[in-house]
Amino acid sequence: MGMTMVEKILAAHAGKDKVKPGELVNAKVDLVLGNDVTTPVAVKEFNKIGVNEVFDKDRVAIVPDHFAPNKDINSAEQCKMIRNFAHNKEITNYFEIGEMGIEHCLLPEKGLALPGDIIIGADSHTCTYGALGALGTGVGSTDMAAGMASGEAWFKVPETIKFVYNGDLQDWVSGKDLILYTIGDIGVDGALYKAMEFSGEVIEDFSMANRMTMSNMAIEAGGKCGLIEPDKKTLEYVKDRAQRDYTVYKSDEDANYDQVIEYDVSEIEPQVAFPHLPENTKGISEVEDIAIDQAVIGSCTNGRLEDLRVAAEILEGKKKAEHLRLIIFPGTQEIYRQAMKEGLIDIFLDAGAAVSTPTCGPCLGGHMGILAKGERAIATTNRNFVGRMGHPESEVYLSNPAVAAASAIKGKIVSPKEVL
Amino acid sequence: MGMTMVEKILAAHAGKDKVKPGELVNAKVDLVLGNDVTTPVAVKEFNKIGVNEVFDKDRVAIVPDHFAPNKDINSAEQCKMIRNFAHNKEITNYFEIGEMGIEHCLLPEKGLALPGDIIIGADSHTCTYGALGALGTGVGSTDMAAGMASGEAWFKVPETIKFVYNGDLQDWVSGKDLILYTIGDIGVDGALYKAMEFSGEVIEDFSMANRMTMSNMAIEAGGKCGLIEPDKKTLEYVKDRAQRDYTVYKSDEDANYDQVIEYDVSEIEPQVAFPHLPENTKGISEVEDIAIDQAVIGSCTNGRLEDLRVAAEILEGKKKAEHLRLIIFPGTQEIYRQAMKEGLIDIFLDAGAAVSTPTCGPCLGGHMGILAKGERAIATTNRNFVGRMGHPESEVYLSNPAVAAASAIKGKIVSPKEVL
Repeated sequence: MGMTMVEKILAAHAGKDKVKPGELVNAKVDLVLGNDVTTPVAVKEFNKIGVNEVFDKDRVAIVPDHFAPNKDINSAEQCKMIRNFAHNKEITNYFEIGEMGIEHCLLPEKGLALPGDIIIGADSHTCTYGALGALGTGVGSTDMAAGMASGEAWFKVPETIKFVYNGDLQDWVSGKDLILYTIGDIGVDGALYKAMEFSGEVIEDFSMANRMTMSNMAIEAGGKCGLIEPDKKTLEYVKDRAQRDYTVYKSDEDANYDQVIEYDVSEIEPQVAFPHLPENTKGISEVEDIAIDQAVIGSCTNGRLEDLRVAAEILEGKKKAEHLRLIIFPGTQEIYRQAMKEGLIDIFLDAGAAVSTPTCGPCLGGHMGILAKGERAIATTNRNFVGRMGHPESEVYLSNPAVAAASAIKGKIVSPKEVL
Repeated sequence: MGMTMVEKILAAHAGKDKVKPGELVNAKVDLVLGNDVTTPVAVKEFNKIGVNEVFDKDRVAIVPDHFAPNKDINSAEQCKMIRNFAHNKEITNYFEIGEMGIEHCLLPEKGLALPGDIIIGADSHTCTYGALGALGTGVGSTDMAAGMASGEAWFKVPETIKFVYNGDLQDWVSGKDLILYTIGDIGVDGALYKAMEFSGEVIEDFSMANRMTMSNMAIEAGGKCGLIEPDKKTLEYVKDRAQRDYTVYKSDEDANYDQVIEYDVSEIEPQVAFPHLPENTKGISEVEDIAIDQAVIGSCTNGRLEDLRVAAEILEGKKKAEHLRLIIFPGTQEIYRQAMKEGLIDIFLDAGAAVSTPTCGPCLGGHMGILAKGERAIATTNRNFVGRMGHPESEVYLSNPAVAAASAIKGKIVSPKEVL
């Protein structure tokens, strides 16, 4: 019996020939990640451990992206603490505002997330790196602290569910729609502590951006990670970026999958996840007259250049609805710069959008676009839990960038077809 | 005995031939302004007055610029309230995020602040419009409410102090330096409830941007307003912008000034106002080794295109100091767009700056760059009171954009000469 990707990655990092689902292994990690919300707690725990240095100065990444540029004194104190920690421990990959981006857009761009890696991050969407064939997974701040000290982490080897996407995509259907559809199908605990493996001809045809969007939301189905086999596109993406060596792992033909789920994508239309769970999905044709107050395009889920291009394609020459706020969050400074060069930012300004410096912003109810009581947002983000973007009585509808842009124009949730 | 500009403006709006300092007059106002911090209180007061409509739908301006894009649920509720008010009262000049800017940059740009106007604004820096020859002055929210209802306001006619600036400017000396120097000279109550009138060959040579910077800070000397006689440049500026008729008022030769203060600007070097008052000014050559954590370039004081051009001139091809945050706040969407076109934003990104959507941001300790305990910022903003930009034990040093940009590069407060 062969092994799945995630089993191979864990075996290699645990110094074993073979591992099996359910087995507990201690594995070396390639990178330990934290942000401004989780790192302060990790630093306190790290200081209790009694080591002076992090295990490897080049293998810790700290990205103040949640409440930065600092929204208040508390967040300023948190950022100050982690800035000092990074400085004192001589951490190479501390990214100050102005030089950074949203962590999960930034790390792949900087060549810090690579095929075959194990990356533990004190942020639930660390699973994004699965798109590169890495085992990226969210951990708590205590695990981050232990990881910074030891360069290792304990894992229970997860079962793997294989998802196979075949068929012809409908217009305006993207990685976001497939992952929303999948979560709608299996539920928010449908892959609980399991590795999701995304495959099939559609995934092969997908850009890295679409792949990252899918892997990013594995956690929204409870997945431990969401992997995609590295291919030519992956290697092309990492070629000039990689800051160290990496290894490509692929699942064996005779790997043991917990389940194999196949989708004919030709039946999937653009998806909208209704409040208050990502599994509450509907095809756009089933969505009736949902007026919205705010449209948010960006985040670690859909803040990549390709996402902004799609939004700009819809918004070009058009205006947002009058009383609606349209806010664009490029994923990184590099994406922002490229969007400027391509004229996308001009299109957004013409449409009446506020364009933010990269930050997680309102996605997690942080800042830069919080909702009042009773307000509704359509967002290209990843979670629509109660109060996620502000007031407990506000609502978030999740979609792809094309649907969000079209909805911004109409002031209600609509298909891109209705504005073109 | 003739009249000063401010006396003429008040007389005309009060329907009188002549007014004298100390006299109480009821005057028509041309525009009533509020932001997201002050308008909610004004709306509550307005609703108590018992009128249904504002006095003129085109003469109320509401600009959510302080805590917008909304930093938290409270600010979201405040913005929602004023958005609804603007909608219900059919207020023409409500500016949503993405379509707006910092109020005092926005109103002149939109042709809503014009020569000879009386503009009352529930924001202390409403005095900015003095640069256009308007009586702009800050009022409380209750006065804003009464103004919205009646289109009138009570004024005690102020005395006028005339400031005359002659001589050749030193390198990198701008309107910001002259107003800081003036405040340093007369003190933060040096013009208490008096009209400041800025004149002389230097002011005549100044751009509108430099003039607006000076008028903007009249309140920092306690001034009721800070006027500059409209000239060719003023009329050129308003020509294609003006949304209504306007009148140019000039002080009579034999006007009665409370005081005339003359400065030889050739003796004035770039100024830095030390914590915690704008009057604590020093010439840049007297500033010794003040390490800084953050540089803020923008705001209603220095967020105009010309300010960004100066900052870019200093920053071009250079990097900010490593552990410092550099944050740029364009004053309006139009300024932001133009800064993109001219390549200024590229220069800022290369330098490692975070570029924000227009907002008052950290200037008032709002959001987008709040200081932690013990941190120091250099800022092109207007106030450096205790805790103004965050923690009560943080410090703000005020300067012009060139000094702020140079200091961002060096990580300590320096003259632009030290980086060129």
